[in-house]
Amino acid sequence: MTPPPETAGFKFNHTMLRVKDPKVSLKFYTEVLGMELVSESKFSDFTLYFLAFDHSDGKETVEEKHANRLNREGILELTHNHGTEDDSNFQGYASGNTDPGRGFGHIAISTPDIEAACERLESLGVPFKKRLTDGKMKNIAFALDPDGYWIELVPQRMAQHP
Amino acid sequence: MTPPPETAGFKFNHTMLRVKDPKVSLKFYTEVLGMELVSESKFSDFTLYFLAFDHSDGKETVEEKHANRLNREGILELTHNHGTEDDSNFQGYASGNTDPGRGFGHIAISTPDIEAACERLESLGVPFKKRLTDGKMKNIAFALDPDGYWIELVPQRMAQHP
Repeated sequence: MTPPPETAGFKFNHTMLRVKDPKVSLKFYTEVLGMELVSESKFSDFTLYFLAFDHSDGKETVEEKHANRLNREGILELTHNHGTEDDSNFQGYASGNTDPGRGFGHIAISTPDIEAACERLESLGVPFKKRLTDGKMKNIAFALDPDGYWIELVPQRMAQHP
Repeated sequence: MTPPPETAGFKFNHTMLRVKDPKVSLKFYTEVLGMELVSESKFSDFTLYFLAFDHSDGKETVEEKHANRLNREGILELTHNHGTEDDSNFQGYASGNTDPGRGFGHIAISTPDIEAACERLESLGVPFKKRLTDGKMKNIAFALDPDGYWIELVPQRMAQHP
């Protein structure tokens, strides 16, 4: 089926997840996963952080990335409701993968070298829900972000099966 | 901060949401929002549907879209656990926006003409959580998908503020 002409140019711009502590989450998504902060919007009660991978080989400037943030795909929006990071009564957010609260499943990062990516994450102390060697599917893994959201790691090219 | 070199080439490939009835969801994401089905994986208990917008002006073939599905951004994975569509006891999935189950917030589609996009969705009977005219932010809207997940609609270029 051809998409309706009225949807021409539509893009799947971003996915939003709430996070308890932006310092911890920003460190994880930038220093561990390699995203960059392209936009930040602070409101009285909450702050929004928009992150994305650079696909310009470092050629785009910070200003260009900011200007282009709505006209691309692959943006991750992290919402911080102020105060959760210091609230000892805060229960944490639901991963979406257990009842009650099942619905959302995961975000996925595709990598040129899945083995190297998983080894590096493991060496950095990132917890895993499923390692490459666990279970039947040996070409995907699930790591956990600081809030417990599942992050699938997938290869960019599937191995050819005989 | 420059991203770690080990993360070069990483892409935010997809976001996964569980859906109750794939017939209803596929119709919504293709006929209403304009995505295309680029891959489908059927297992004994569940089926995975991978959807994405075409950004090739219709030039890429179905085979090319399938082959490229892991090496791009902006893929939406819908997981159907077989049987939910006919199960009168099935409670539905959590949107992620109410307790218990708060965490995931929404996915967002950016559009060249936000007014036209919202008018069309409204004329097709899509329910809205927030219309363009509701609340303070007049340039974004939130529609609801068939499972009640929030879909933000955003412009691709922000209006210049005086």
